[in-house]
Amino acid sequence: MTWVEVNAAPELIHTPPFRLKQKSADRTALNTDMYCLLKCAPLILAVAVCHGWLFGDFVGKQKELDEISLWPLPQKFQSSAVAFKLSPASFQIVHAKQSSAGPSCSILVNAFRLETFSQLVYEDNYGANNINKTDISDFPRFAHRGILLDSSRHFLPLKVILANLEAMAMNKFNVFHWHIVDDPSFPYMSRTFPDLSQKGAYHPFTHVYTPSDVKMVIEFARMRGIRVIPEFDTPGHTQSWGNGQLDLLTPCYSGSSPSGTFGPVNPILNSSYDFMTQFFKEISTVFPDAYIHLGGDEVDFSCWKSNPDIKKFMVQQGFGTDYSKLESFYIQRLLDIVAATKKGYMVWQEVFDNGVKLKDDTVVEVWIGNKMEEELQNVTGAGFTTILSAPWYLDYISYGQDWQRYYKVEPLNFPGTDAQKKLVIGGEACLWGEYVDATNLTPRLWPRASAVAERLWSDKSVTDVGNAYKRLVQHRCRMVKRGIPAEPLFVGHCRQEYMGL
Amino acid sequence: MTWVEVNAAPELIHTPPFRLKQKSADRTALNTDMYCLLKCAPLILAVAVCHGWLFGDFVGKQKELDEISLWPLPQKFQSSAVAFKLSPASFQIVHAKQSSAGPSCSILVNAFRLETFSQLVYEDNYGANNINKTDISDFPRFAHRGILLDSSRHFLPLKVILANLEAMAMNKFNVFHWHIVDDPSFPYMSRTFPDLSQKGAYHPFTHVYTPSDVKMVIEFARMRGIRVIPEFDTPGHTQSWGNGQLDLLTPCYSGSSPSGTFGPVNPILNSSYDFMTQFFKEISTVFPDAYIHLGGDEVDFSCWKSNPDIKKFMVQQGFGTDYSKLESFYIQRLLDIVAATKKGYMVWQEVFDNGVKLKDDTVVEVWIGNKMEEELQNVTGAGFTTILSAPWYLDYISYGQDWQRYYKVEPLNFPGTDAQKKLVIGGEACLWGEYVDATNLTPRLWPRASAVAERLWSDKSVTDVGNAYKRLVQHRCRMVKRGIPAEPLFVGHCRQEYMGL
Repeated sequence: MTWVEVNAAPELIHTPPFRLKQKSADRTALNTDMYCLLKCAPLILAVAVCHGWLFGDFVGKQKELDEISLWPLPQKFQSSAVAFKLSPASFQIVHAKQSSAGPSCSILVNAFRLETFSQLVYEDNYGANNINKTDISDFPRFAHRGILLDSSRHFLPLKVILANLEAMAMNKFNVFHWHIVDDPSFPYMSRTFPDLSQKGAYHPFTHVYTPSDVKMVIEFARMRGIRVIPEFDTPGHTQSWGNGQLDLLTPCYSGSSPSGTFGPVNPILNSSYDFMTQFFKEISTVFPDAYIHLGGDEVDFSCWKSNPDIKKFMVQQGFGTDYSKLESFYIQRLLDIVAATKKGYMVWQEVFDNGVKLKDDTVVEVWIGNKMEEELQNVTGAGFTTILSAPWYLDYISYGQDWQRYYKVEPLNFPGTDAQKKLVIGGEACLWGEYVDATNLTPRLWPRASAVAERLWSDKSVTDVGNAYKRLVQHRCRMVKRGIPAEPLFVGHCRQEYMGL
Repeated sequence: MTWVEVNAAPELIHTPPFRLKQKSADRTALNTDMYCLLKCAPLILAVAVCHGWLFGDFVGKQKELDEISLWPLPQKFQSSAVAFKLSPASFQIVHAKQSSAGPSCSILVNAFRLETFSQLVYEDNYGANNINKTDISDFPRFAHRGILLDSSRHFLPLKVILANLEAMAMNKFNVFHWHIVDDPSFPYMSRTFPDLSQKGAYHPFTHVYTPSDVKMVIEFARMRGIRVIPEFDTPGHTQSWGNGQLDLLTPCYSGSSPSGTFGPVNPILNSSYDFMTQFFKEISTVFPDAYIHLGGDEVDFSCWKSNPDIKKFMVQQGFGTDYSKLESFYIQRLLDIVAATKKGYMVWQEVFDNGVKLKDDTVVEVWIGNKMEEELQNVTGAGFTTILSAPWYLDYISYGQDWQRYYKVEPLNFPGTDAQKKLVIGGEACLWGEYVDATNLTPRLWPRASAVAERLWSDKSVTDVGNAYKRLVQHRCRMVKRGIPAEPLFVGHCRQEYMGL
């Protein structure tokens, strides 16, 4: 019998949802699997090859390390010249004797497709599948490795989301930040407020995510070790909410009369907070992750400034003419509402910048490129955990290999103590939806996001762009082979292209 | 009986291949159709609706002109409020009595899918297909409206090429400039020199265009009124040629000995010209169009300068150290070789710039953005016809709606006489292949190239970007509906998206 030992990454245990799930009293069916994973830690997965590899079936030639092209690069990696042949018919992965997990651990059984393992397999010149004897000890550098997709500016059909979850798993991303609604459309179908999508989606039937669609996304992600964090951004970016929820938005005024247009959520009406209470109660049960993203970015004050009722309220509250105080007033009440659902929350950096009082476990997302280092310093200096997305806005395109720019970012390159650096728990590649939909999203995201994946997973010392290029070219071909239309890095071709056509 | 009269565009007759075919003595089978088209001119196509439209089936509501969203905008267009319903089961287009063409004119029979006609059809709120009574008199502003695709930097599978020919037809492009081979790979399978693709393609079987593939591209294009002009670029951009053709390329030297690398085609050997004679003899029969593009751009002199035999030849010829004279020497002989095949030729602007003696009917392609107006002035001043591609290099991408930049170009905006302006016969949108392959080519090309399409087809006065945006959004949705994954212009959705999913 022949063995390959893989020290599987214990990262799933370190990510917030699992920590929080432990604190939470209510265990859903989903939690069973999570506890099963917790039980497995520290996990030593021994991959036993019971049937597949025959004695004496060594392939007597050295395989170059860089030809194996792991992506993202594992933390420790030792390959040898000893190669085995794999037979798809008889190969299997089984639990090792010393493993604390068993066949009841469904995520793990599913994860026996372990991504890194599959990347070790290569075709030799005779078309046979080979794998070299390899010891891998791996874990991610950062716990939060996210992709933001925006399903409001363009509706993204389910199959696009699922395909990208598959691609995320191939790149060891573990958070799908679902920017699900925004100004242009409201595709989330709410059980409590069905009019939100009925009147706020591009189309009430074809351009919505039904409850079962959402469940499918969450389950598909879960089986790939990916958390789904939904974002319901308020009080700005809410034009589409207003279609289906009367009086939610602030009426803007032109002189002394309403102009017919609307601004951010109306922060001076109790009805707004009653709505948010019911709405986020639903959201907290639909999305099992311990975190919800509450947005809070880019609030335009001009409508508030035009409205006489708002102005009166400002005076009453003693806010003067500082509308960021009104914004904070709203956000503060919203955070209390969401905290009551036992969820943690993430917010865009403006919420922190405006001095809103935040719970200790709030995650602040730094997205503004200008003075990014200063912001990281301030946020972590105040003791908050943070994730970085500012350098990774992948909707901004330019000619050439911009993946290199994403790759060269060092997230901890800001002034701060070691304790501050530890508060940077990861980052996100964001693909905002102005210019992407089902026709072009996937090739635009991959393999550019792969550069972010390696930065967030691999050791800080992994910075050689030339070496990364070689591996990424292969990794991109691997994605294409698996049906992800990742765009080319540069001139060339993939070996498996167009066979059988 | 109800009629819609369409004055079909006589442009097919005005494009160079048809003019030249008249001069040419040898008529291939293909020419029968071309002559049939010539016979039809000036063509008045009366579209008679014999079965489809019932009397009294008027739809009594006004359809806004801009909702019909023709693209590119016809030269003259008069719509009325009178609307008819179309039934797919019984509708047909037939020859009018006064038409000089008959059912034997196969291109015309096929063209009864006339692109503009289909764009007049719109769905009403009840899902029925409608068409308003419309008189259209149309012709293109420029005869040459091309798309350049590059199948060397990345191989483009046949279905990608065919899909883009379909999209070209929808946008009234009429020239497919097939940049088929270049430095990285040689996918054209030559009958005379099979080693060129055998050893120069990315893969000798999967990454090649067989003779039947090439025929299919040409026929698919022909049925859509599209000429296929192949480009075999020499003496530079020929690295891939060297793999399968010994001694074709110049050996570069490092000091006094060959370095093992190769430069442009070796211009001092008779064997190079013998090869070109045989090669272009084949090309002239495989590609029926009257023109071949011979490239001639970006010749790097460093290898020639390193080679002692080349240096000796320079002295013998009295070229001094002016290697552009050597380049011209090569090009001049090549042009003579190709002229002997009775083909016209197109060249990149450097060939003109270097003072090579050109046949009168040579088309010079202006591609260098810097001093583009000056170049147009010079080329047309010397009496040569020209096409413009400099402002339309669509491989250069940037964030936002760059189609507007392409749209705002006025090709005749250079100093020159009316006679000079008439020598600008059109332009081309070029999508070079460094960063595109089957995964992302089509959404990157469309609808950005559509902006170029309207600039080259519609009247000079059609310049309203706001109006164009509205129509182009609809036109892009029409492409998506027909299976062309054209990317979105901006935030929004298409009405027909995701139905039945």
